[in-house]
Amino acid sequence: MAIDRTKLRWNGWGWSGQAEDFSGRADVWAWLAAELGMPSLLATPARSLDDVQLPPSRLAPADRHILARLLGTEAVRDDKLQRTSHARGRGYQDLLRLRAGDLAVAPDAVIYPRSNHDVLTLLAFASERSIAVVPYGGGTSVVGGVTPRRFAHNGVITIDLSEMDRVESIDPESLTASAQAGIFGPALEQTLAARGFTLGHFPQSFEFSTLGGWIAHRGAGQLSNRYGRPEDWLIAAEIATPRGILRDHDFPASATGPRLKDIAIGSEGVFGIITRANIRLHRAPELTTGRAYLFRDFASGAAAVRDGVQNGVGAAMLRLSDIEETRFQRALSRLGGGASILHQASAAILNAWRYGRPCLLLAEFEGSRASVQSSKRALGAIARHYGALPLGSGSVQRWQQSRFGGPYLWDPMLDRGLGVDTLETATSWSNLHPLYEAVRTALEQAIAATVPRPLARGIVMCHISHSYTDGASLYFTYIFPRMLGDEMGQWQSIKRAASEAIVATGGTISHHHGVGEDHLPWIVKEKGEVSLEVMRAIKCTLDPKGILNPGKLIPL
Amino acid sequence: MAIDRTKLRWNGWGWSGQAEDFSGRADVWAWLAAELGMPSLLATPARSLDDVQLPPSRLAPADRHILARLLGTEAVRDDKLQRTSHARGRGYQDLLRLRAGDLAVAPDAVIYPRSNHDVLTLLAFASERSIAVVPYGGGTSVVGGVTPRRFAHNGVITIDLSEMDRVESIDPESLTASAQAGIFGPALEQTLAARGFTLGHFPQSFEFSTLGGWIAHRGAGQLSNRYGRPEDWLIAAEIATPRGILRDHDFPASATGPRLKDIAIGSEGVFGIITRANIRLHRAPELTTGRAYLFRDFASGAAAVRDGVQNGVGAAMLRLSDIEETRFQRALSRLGGGASILHQASAAILNAWRYGRPCLLLAEFEGSRASVQSSKRALGAIARHYGALPLGSGSVQRWQQSRFGGPYLWDPMLDRGLGVDTLETATSWSNLHPLYEAVRTALEQAIAATVPRPLARGIVMCHISHSYTDGASLYFTYIFPRMLGDEMGQWQSIKRAASEAIVATGGTISHHHGVGEDHLPWIVKEKGEVSLEVMRAIKCTLDPKGILNPGKLIPL
Repeated sequence: MAIDRTKLRWNGWGWSGQAEDFSGRADVWAWLAAELGMPSLLATPARSLDDVQLPPSRLAPADRHILARLLGTEAVRDDKLQRTSHARGRGYQDLLRLRAGDLAVAPDAVIYPRSNHDVLTLLAFASERSIAVVPYGGGTSVVGGVTPRRFAHNGVITIDLSEMDRVESIDPESLTASAQAGIFGPALEQTLAARGFTLGHFPQSFEFSTLGGWIAHRGAGQLSNRYGRPEDWLIAAEIATPRGILRDHDFPASATGPRLKDIAIGSEGVFGIITRANIRLHRAPELTTGRAYLFRDFASGAAAVRDGVQNGVGAAMLRLSDIEETRFQRALSRLGGGASILHQASAAILNAWRYGRPCLLLAEFEGSRASVQSSKRALGAIARHYGALPLGSGSVQRWQQSRFGGPYLWDPMLDRGLGVDTLETATSWSNLHPLYEAVRTALEQAIAATVPRPLARGIVMCHISHSYTDGASLYFTYIFPRMLGDEMGQWQSIKRAASEAIVATGGTISHHHGVGEDHLPWIVKEKGEVSLEVMRAIKCTLDPKGILNPGKLIPL
Repeated sequence: MAIDRTKLRWNGWGWSGQAEDFSGRADVWAWLAAELGMPSLLATPARSLDDVQLPPSRLAPADRHILARLLGTEAVRDDKLQRTSHARGRGYQDLLRLRAGDLAVAPDAVIYPRSNHDVLTLLAFASERSIAVVPYGGGTSVVGGVTPRRFAHNGVITIDLSEMDRVESIDPESLTASAQAGIFGPALEQTLAARGFTLGHFPQSFEFSTLGGWIAHRGAGQLSNRYGRPEDWLIAAEIATPRGILRDHDFPASATGPRLKDIAIGSEGVFGIITRANIRLHRAPELTTGRAYLFRDFASGAAAVRDGVQNGVGAAMLRLSDIEETRFQRALSRLGGGASILHQASAAILNAWRYGRPCLLLAEFEGSRASVQSSKRALGAIARHYGALPLGSGSVQRWQQSRFGGPYLWDPMLDRGLGVDTLETATSWSNLHPLYEAVRTALEQAIAATVPRPLARGIVMCHISHSYTDGASLYFTYIFPRMLGDEMGQWQSIKRAASEAIVATGGTISHHHGVGEDHLPWIVKEKGEVSLEVMRAIKCTLDPKGILNPGKLIPL
């Protein structure tokens, strides 16, 4: 069931065979160039795998031999494809480096454990030999969460959990399941669906990320409004640490102090390796449907989302794009021949598109037939109250079809001299608009400062991706002409500007991507020095030799 | 706003003036004696305050002087009423000892801080002088959570937070509030109600417990099915520790690793003193109503509760009594003149009462008019499906009127040679009935073993108090003839038997009462040694001198 790595791009997103729809469309690229103020796009192809050089593995032949003896020959892999494909996550800076053939951080070996016993054996060996270990689920971190860092250790090994991928039991009476943490999204959902259940955790990385990874980086799926986050659906965790296997009980609730799962969620592999999870299930939805609305501005759209969540409308997703993102999506949709929205468009809608500051809300509903109908009605009433134009279900169907496809867009952009990145944050409703304005402005200004060409500019767009009664997240996507020659400097200055704006305006440095390496510079400010000391104390107890994913989550 | 301690019973529950309805009713007591197989009840009055002796305060006059200078004369109290009324919580064994005049553990002084600055000053002083400090909200712990233990320290001081009791801000847009942790339930809800909001946390101790206490012991209110537990409604905590004030941000969600609130909830004062909380609010319900149903046995009632929760019926409370509790409630209700149920009773219901094994379900609904109506309809359909008889709303109204009154029943029982205690646990739905049977049997057998009189026996009753999609809690109440002369031995052997049964059958040692001292013997078994080491590491970081509530939550 584990994914066949030979079929994945080693330096980009997803399946090698799968091309993004727009990659061959000259009209799309011409439009994008014009939007970015570039006379034409460039050709900046990635280096090929044959063309790049790996540093020699630091794993001593004797140690490699011992590992193979302890875990089996098949479990220890250090061929070029394994080391390159585990060298980095899938953030913008990861892709920049991989495409440039920079593999300095490639792991010395990749180990595929098949049991808790294997993981414990490996951790004992690594502790003894002072070898750093990097837990690895699907490797889709966009914050440097799986970058193999050696620091003062004798080497660094990536532990790929993908062969620990079984759903071990389903309890239909309690609506729970127990599964090994290395299971990928599609395998998990297929197994649950065969019994009539779903977990409902669908991050954009769904196809290439794992249950353990979702927990470890404290993520959120696209439908978290209905299905919750790991905090909501994780009942109990099992973690392998150098101190042994730790297990939570599967109590639905308990008053016996903090639980293991409270420190497993968001632990990013620094406290231990999540090997198993006991999770809450939902019955597979009877009905899934959507509705789109066009709001006259971001503020009225956000107010409608807030109203919907606070009044328990029960939508699975409420995704509100700002004006820029709405405009971008509409342009792509028109260029791409996706005329579904326009086909349905009344004169009022066409006018809104033309003269207004329209913001698109995509709402997805799932559950029983009755609850979906009542949610749809309730949201419709709220949308009307805020003066929105109903657009039917076409846009949501389009979104559903391509909901995991976004990252495929990155590679063809990177091939053409463009940069593209995303970041996300969250705050209370009353602070949402100040945060939105601050981050958007910071991104625009920082991009402008790195794009010296007089007419060039970036595209900065945003949507509300997840909402709660007390606040919401903001998800920014930005595309910009790459500053060839100093691409890392450009990325850093943009990232820094946005991050400073987030911290200064009361947002969290990450709502669902995690901390990894990329957000470390702001984590002390966010959590405070003493909170970090608490995290260090937890780490010290569970990982006394400090071998687990060093340099992530907690500043050294 | 802080409670006037002179008006509270120092050795029992609640307001001195408030008598429990049954205390003067000879028929009730005669019935209870017969039920317990006792020829007659005894007279076992408590010793009066004048009649008991406090150990001398160990607080050196010089230290007392310094404290009064640092915090103000009014903040430092060591008169007899202060020390006795803070000597213990309100568990059965606490009451036994207080009524016997055993005040060996009375604190050397009680301090009433008025600000974070006061708390920090006190913690610094106590750390320097090695004086143990016991954070104290309303003092209603039933697990020994506020017992002042000195151990190797030079003294022990109770910190009563009740003068830090302000709602500091309400954010109506984000549906949140910030309040000082010492605020009592009624004051909090009155302040919120004046603005149209509610927190909805109503433990049985509501009138005499505080926001900080609810968080510290990881409790659950009677309406937690709708309003959640601290895990659900706490956005951010502020904790005063010997290392300083730690604060969470008010992010609705975040992916930046564990948060301070994750270790504040259930911390029982051992990591720090919760001084402020940022909480999620609900709009005050438009409508509150109830429905009662009579199920033909516990299993079908439990199945209906499960079905209701798993299908999102949305009741605020689903309280299912087992046969014994149903029988007990019915007898009290008939004796007490509360004929509301019988007045409405059809022949079918009377038959069920007489010949069946009826189990009473009390359902409470609140929210918007529409949602209440739809919840009521949905639960009604489920109840019918499981063959329940509808009883109307009378029983729920009776419950609502006396929902916080239960503990007042204890004192008159203790006056009459009876013992009474409660304990609670939780497990998955598929393990609920085995756990129920195991704990009930253990309690019955342990009580029988301590009641040598040939005809005497205990009454053991249970209800499902809180339910989740994946499981539920079981709340046991047991009444028994007291073994005069060895009352503590009797309590310990009953408690031990029930606790061993809980742990052996996969329940948590506490679903909402906490760990305190009473559950310490089972905490290692439940959490594992390494998890406790993690908790010790957290404590060490925040409280290096170990002055905070020693002997609670974490075994020494």
